[in-house]
Amino acid sequence: MTQSSAFRTDRYELTMVDAAINSGRANLECMFEAFARRLPTGRRYGIVGGTGRLLELIRQFRFGDAELTWLEDNAVVRRPTLDFLADYSFTGSIWGYREGDAYFPGSPLLQVESSFAEGVVLETIILSVLNYDTSVASAAARMVSVSLGRPIAEMGSRRTGEYSAVAAARAAYIAGFASTSSLEAGRTWGIPTMGTAAHSFVLLHNSEEEAFRAQVDAFGADTTLLVDTYDVPRGIALAVAVAGPQLGAIRIDSGDLPTVVAAARAQLDALGAVNTTITVTSDLDEFAIAALSASPVDAFGVGTSVVTGSGEPAAGLVYKLVAHKGPAAEWISVAKTSASKVSIGGRKNAVRRLDEFGTAQEEIVLLGAGPSAEVLAPLTDGGAPATERPLLVPLITDGVFDEGFMGPEGTSRARAHNATAMQELPIEAFRLGRGEAVIPTTYR
Amino acid sequence: MTQSSAFRTDRYELTMVDAAINSGRANLECMFEAFARRLPTGRRYGIVGGTGRLLELIRQFRFGDAELTWLEDNAVVRRPTLDFLADYSFTGSIWGYREGDAYFPGSPLLQVESSFAEGVVLETIILSVLNYDTSVASAAARMVSVSLGRPIAEMGSRRTGEYSAVAAARAAYIAGFASTSSLEAGRTWGIPTMGTAAHSFVLLHNSEEEAFRAQVDAFGADTTLLVDTYDVPRGIALAVAVAGPQLGAIRIDSGDLPTVVAAARAQLDALGAVNTTITVTSDLDEFAIAALSASPVDAFGVGTSVVTGSGEPAAGLVYKLVAHKGPAAEWISVAKTSASKVSIGGRKNAVRRLDEFGTAQEEIVLLGAGPSAEVLAPLTDGGAPATERPLLVPLITDGVFDEGFMGPEGTSRARAHNATAMQELPIEAFRLGRGEAVIPTTYR
Repeated sequence: MTQSSAFRTDRYELTMVDAAINSGRANLECMFEAFARRLPTGRRYGIVGGTGRLLELIRQFRFGDAELTWLEDNAVVRRPTLDFLADYSFTGSIWGYREGDAYFPGSPLLQVESSFAEGVVLETIILSVLNYDTSVASAAARMVSVSLGRPIAEMGSRRTGEYSAVAAARAAYIAGFASTSSLEAGRTWGIPTMGTAAHSFVLLHNSEEEAFRAQVDAFGADTTLLVDTYDVPRGIALAVAVAGPQLGAIRIDSGDLPTVVAAARAQLDALGAVNTTITVTSDLDEFAIAALSASPVDAFGVGTSVVTGSGEPAAGLVYKLVAHKGPAAEWISVAKTSASKVSIGGRKNAVRRLDEFGTAQEEIVLLGAGPSAEVLAPLTDGGAPATERPLLVPLITDGVFDEGFMGPEGTSRARAHNATAMQELPIEAFRLGRGEAVIPTTYR
Repeated sequence: MTQSSAFRTDRYELTMVDAAINSGRANLECMFEAFARRLPTGRRYGIVGGTGRLLELIRQFRFGDAELTWLEDNAVVRRPTLDFLADYSFTGSIWGYREGDAYFPGSPLLQVESSFAEGVVLETIILSVLNYDTSVASAAARMVSVSLGRPIAEMGSRRTGEYSAVAAARAAYIAGFASTSSLEAGRTWGIPTMGTAAHSFVLLHNSEEEAFRAQVDAFGADTTLLVDTYDVPRGIALAVAVAGPQLGAIRIDSGDLPTVVAAARAQLDALGAVNTTITVTSDLDEFAIAALSASPVDAFGVGTSVVTGSGEPAAGLVYKLVAHKGPAAEWISVAKTSASKVSIGGRKNAVRRLDEFGTAQEEIVLLGAGPSAEVLAPLTDGGAPATERPLLVPLITDGVFDEGFMGPEGTSRARAHNATAMQELPIEAFRLGRGEAVIPTTYR
């Protein structure tokens, strides 16, 4: 598999370009929009993930000789389309919600303004990245919101595809996770990495004691010893005997955690290891973390549930043509109208109305305005004092990428922005039980 | 992100090597095993996916200067470990269930025999690939089993990570899907690709009729026209008016499908388009496909549900040290024993016992035998005539890869093997409702 992102695309994006070149509509100026018709079942908010990764992939979206030859050999498209693809690099503009921000049904998360051909070929890669990363970020935010400030490490690489693993580590970090087990996420995105040993390391040695001694010899007493290979109380006693009361941490990966953790804390304290912390890592999700609120857990490790979106592995975002220019260069709104998948056409802008305490009250989608319009003028709502935070920022302007949203720097900014956006949400947003979107989306 | 697969690895795999080099156990000959403690909830069988992809990734598992420098700069491991990683290429042996085969709880899907250090560093990549691809293959097989021979296209690239999308297309094809929308899957694995147009193509034009005419002009009357942008009966009438009764196919992506499809078939027939086929693509999963058994659908397109494992996005496979050599070079079985995650240690082999009609009766795991032992001698079971199909094949032998399981050829072989393995399953396997594994796993 090559590095070009251009082939991670559905065939029909290219056949549509082919037919549109043939019909003379390929160069028509268009606006595409990515949005969610609804939140995942029972969720009260979603968190935007993937934007920084997506910008890198759009920059790499080029068709090289290998791709063009394959398309020609397989008769996917014809010569005019091959010529268009050979020259392809995105020259339009993209606005989007800031990565890490909250979103709600109908929020116009990404707006792509370009020719039809330039915008339609990005559909698959835009949705792949945003759907997966947003799914992970949305699940991760729920876990962080019930962790009471205790750090959570992402360690689910083994439970999702080997590239998605790196994306998941990044999305979880943006939503407030503290670290990841993934080396590639550490290298590529600057995320702190963690991890010491698995059960296999204990089983490799002739005894648990020998394994603990080997680990302490290698990493010092400040390491984390995994104490549940055989018997937890015996494991803890051995761990403190080997490392001394200055042992950094123990990790528990099985059992009835509230019971086991309470007993472990008492045992550590009795052994004088009062500063030794307890990390738990056994099939945790937001509900299990919440259930450990009153337990003396110091840190969590989460795997499967976060990298699979905790029951919602795809965020359900769609990408639709919402407007194109008409004969007098005016914007014409368009939308599918049949059956259950109705869309709201037209160029849009969006603001989040906050009350005097800075708490979100309403997601306001401004129809017809378009993302480049000035939206800072205060909207009034029955005279109540309120502010409106604009939600769309320019990510690419006439083909020029805003580097500040990309790379490790963009990842850190997104994490900081997420912390701010979470503070705006009404307290009801953090109930784990099923509910509706915590603020309404209104169209103006 | 670079091409080396070596960093798509959890940090603790490398710190374990570091500590094991320090303790003198790194070179000990070991056997690791990948298996599932249980099937996904309610499933009656699973399908192995990912093996061919995994072999490619193990071959690429090399630490280059960039990786080594990063590990050194971040003090992840020390000099002896850096030297070991610099020279790393897998020199051991791996046996596995054939890709496409069925599996059950406890089936020893992959057996890795190597030094501790060589085997432990592969844990993350092995589980990432097998967990995701197996999840997709297992879901896809259920869909194929209720499709009554009608072809299913995989079109879920937009609902999973942009690399996982390619893996999903491959896993679904192995489990019997006919084609994919993913160009990269077509190029890399030789899978037939499909796709013509989305709603945006219709919305781009001044009318549905103009859009249909543009598409027929480009691709001929044999194309597939998407008829549900506005109103399905009107769309069908227009489609046949534009393309003539020789129209290739219509696609319907919304609505109450059994009703809409029946009406569409009647309308097409009345218009003389008796050979025009009907493809449906609206949020299908195995249950929706089964509900269309009696409907005049000719082909299905499936997206979200197949690429997310239809509710089970990770197969739950684990990778455990099950044996290591002792002082006299004898194999010593090892296993974690605490709490709920008990494993069965020891080297294993496996056979599937079939009755006289070739129907699977029992998954037999042979303890202590090891994968290289001869298992073709018939096992007897109360004198009943039966055969035992050996399940483990050598994938890598002393560092030499079996190319026949890799690349497009390996993908085709896996698809053919899946068809055979599905034929062996008892008919109860194909019930969609929740149930237990359709055959028991026994240990001997």
